[in-house]
Amino acid sequence: MKDYIKEIEAALERYLPQGDYAEQRLIDAVRYSLALPGKRVRPSLTLAFAELCGGSVEAAIPFACAVEMVHTYSLIHDDLPCMDNDDYRRGQLSNHKVYSEDIALLAGDALQSMAYAAMLGDEAVAAVGGERAARAARILAEKSGLIGMVGGQAIDLSMEHREVGIDLVRLMEEKKTANLIEAACMMGCVVGGGGEEQIKAAGQYAHAIGLAFQIVDDILDVTSTAEELGKPIGSDQENEKNTFMSLLGMERCRALVKLLTAEAVEALSAFEGDTSGLADFAEKLANRRK
Amino acid sequence: MKDYIKEIEAALERYLPQGDYAEQRLIDAVRYSLALPGKRVRPSLTLAFAELCGGSVEAAIPFACAVEMVHTYSLIHDDLPCMDNDDYRRGQLSNHKVYSEDIALLAGDALQSMAYAAMLGDEAVAAVGGERAARAARILAEKSGLIGMVGGQAIDLSMEHREVGIDLVRLMEEKKTANLIEAACMMGCVVGGGGEEQIKAAGQYAHAIGLAFQIVDDILDVTSTAEELGKPIGSDQENEKNTFMSLLGMERCRALVKLLTAEAVEALSAFEGDTSGLADFAEKLANRRK
Repeated sequence: MKDYIKEIEAALERYLPQGDYAEQRLIDAVRYSLALPGKRVRPSLTLAFAELCGGSVEAAIPFACAVEMVHTYSLIHDDLPCMDNDDYRRGQLSNHKVYSEDIALLAGDALQSMAYAAMLGDEAVAAVGGERAARAARILAEKSGLIGMVGGQAIDLSMEHREVGIDLVRLMEEKKTANLIEAACMMGCVVGGGGEEQIKAAGQYAHAIGLAFQIVDDILDVTSTAEELGKPIGSDQENEKNTFMSLLGMERCRALVKLLTAEAVEALSAFEGDTSGLADFAEKLANRRK
Repeated sequence: MKDYIKEIEAALERYLPQGDYAEQRLIDAVRYSLALPGKRVRPSLTLAFAELCGGSVEAAIPFACAVEMVHTYSLIHDDLPCMDNDDYRRGQLSNHKVYSEDIALLAGDALQSMAYAAMLGDEAVAAVGGERAARAARILAEKSGLIGMVGGQAIDLSMEHREVGIDLVRLMEEKKTANLIEAACMMGCVVGGGGEEQIKAAGQYAHAIGLAFQIVDDILDVTSTAEELGKPIGSDQENEKNTFMSLLGMERCRALVKLLTAEAVEALSAFEGDTSGLADFAEKLANRRK
């Protein structure tokens, strides 16, 4: 996959209001979380699928930024005291530790609306047309919403301190983690001019790498060292969390990651262009050590 | 203004997922707040302006519901302990008192995405076209977002326990209260097929009644009784809040309400149809006792 990080980060900055505003502290809070160092996986996937379908990076940038804005809002709200109560995010203080809880709540809310303003702005609509812009934005709204990513968060809350089966863990992770990655890839196809078959295939690729990503996360929480991972290990077991590892064990988890990665690579056959970068990316996710 | 409440409430219910979901508690929380008894002012304005511009209620309903969903998310988040910490809303327990803080946070987040899914759904786009749907959704995103409604909330937080001037109070209320009403009215014109002049006039009408509404609120907090108002009075003074009343006094507040109401009625002259209902509504807001 091409390195799109610089273009994405420059574009994110351009969506922030410039000049004097009475709500400057809120704008600073939004900028703080958008600028945290990250791999920008989701928006990069949007751009990669847009290019694969024959679209331009320029036309797809508002949609890529929108995915990152929604991802960022979900992290800010996830870290709040009433949720995971995390003081750190990517090695830096979490938003509410820097700006207080009330501003962090509002920063998340504002980021969600910024995502739709970006996708439905004059430039974005002029570049891809009203129908495609609307469809891409709807995919993001559905995949990130009540029975998508946010629904996955609610299922996760409902699983605390009780035993559940693997089907519910899988459903929770499909919603909480995979759904936004699906949106990222499908939106890229939509705005890049891909056909229905390609949009569907992008969703399959994303679903597979999204689940594999989460299973590898669960494995590393057991097998890695805190130094290698850059965050505490063993926390899932300590918190008696229901995970793929706790329910399936190492061997079946590794087999599942292999299977999902093969599924992801297979889905790429729906595209005519060069998909080697996306195939490599799936393999890298499966074999990552941190 | 026509009584649209039944149509709006029936449509809001239709946007909720039916059937079995693992995130049922979250869906219940969303339904709870959407179903709280209310006057449905904002979505009614969307429908009224859509009809005034020659559009149908049916085509405008997704946009009206979207405005109410955004309004409802803002109330849920506003009541949270880290914000106003209110236990009651419209005489009923607030969302987080019934469903706990974490679910209330997620319910607000989900309502925001539901709004965009509604406006950009197949039915909505088929009825008004992709360009208009995208434009209406963008208006909502901008007016409710970082330098709109959410920005107004942030300014409000920044004003606590310090003296500020009337300009900042006015700016805060323009953003926090008037902006969403502006979105409601302008979106009605956009989806109803109104021209640029009409969209602008709808925004002026909304801006004027939005500000007047807030000033009347401030007046009633001083002049009304708790029984008449159905909520505690005198809370602004007790909390040393900066309000139109504390900064301008009764006489100038009453004059301002009169001026704004005249401005609202004047703005309606941009429309050819029957605007008497909307003019009456502005007068009623100005003369309300609760």
